[in-house]
Amino acid sequence: MHEMSRAETLRFLSDGARTAKLATTLRDGAPHIVPVWFLIDNERLVFMTWHESVKARSLRRDSRIAICVDDDKPPFAFVAIQGRASISTDPGKRARFARLIAARYMGPTRAEEFGARNDIEGELVITVTPERIVARAELAN
Amino acid sequence: MHEMSRAETLRFLSDGARTAKLATTLRDGAPHIVPVWFLIDNERLVFMTWHESVKARSLRRDSRIAICVDDDKPPFAFVAIQGRASISTDPGKRARFARLIAARYMGPTRAEEFGARNDIEGELVITVTPERIVARAELAN
Repeated sequence: MHEMSRAETLRFLSDGARTAKLATTLRDGAPHIVPVWFLIDNERLVFMTWHESVKARSLRRDSRIAICVDDDKPPFAFVAIQGRASISTDPGKRARFARLIAARYMGPTRAEEFGARNDIEGELVITVTPERIVARAELAN
Repeated sequence: MHEMSRAETLRFLSDGARTAKLATTLRDGAPHIVPVWFLIDNERLVFMTWHESVKARSLRRDSRIAICVDDDKPPFAFVAIQGRASISTDPGKRARFARLIAARYMGPTRAEEFGARNDIEGELVITVTPERIVARAELAN
């Protein structure tokens, strides 16, 4: 096992079409988890969500968030992040990230089609500033 | 998009070496997330953890847990589970699941080697009974 450097961690998070699993705490204290498409922008994680989703409601109440991205092929690796989420409704930011995220996951030829679907009023852009990162590679050797 | 049936959901969870991302709530209310190796046994999820891990401490305090397993290749699919965890220290159960889980992730030839590593006093067997399941396939078409 080895701890990833900051540069390795950022590369790992940006590699291919890996999804982020995102945990928030519900009003009653129970944990909630869901996968999201995301990007790394300026060493922060950016994803989008509908303003009435469970995670949007949770994050408006409490900005603390935990995120995990992993590689489930041997020898296995993962990055787990605890951070704070900030919420934006800015239309320019929404238009830009909707298309960038769509390009990452659906490829350049379908980026506009999928980007336009999420570039609508009510979609939020969430930016996560990491406060604690655990990043480990070669877990099973 | 389509909702998976119960049978599809169980097949999806058991397919290949998919890992589970597991969320718990910390004492201060913040969410915590980590990937684990797991199995399906009698429609429940089973994983192992060290008794002093963050998730073991959280689950002793509050048995509520959220789990996500996803497929990050187009057209994308995921299963998200909210449930309750029960904790066992039974040595027979530990010996059995340590080897079954190792076989799933490291293959039959290395199951004994990896199984023996986790078949030690202090490792807990956690069984999760699902209470709510969201299971969706073909998310992006």
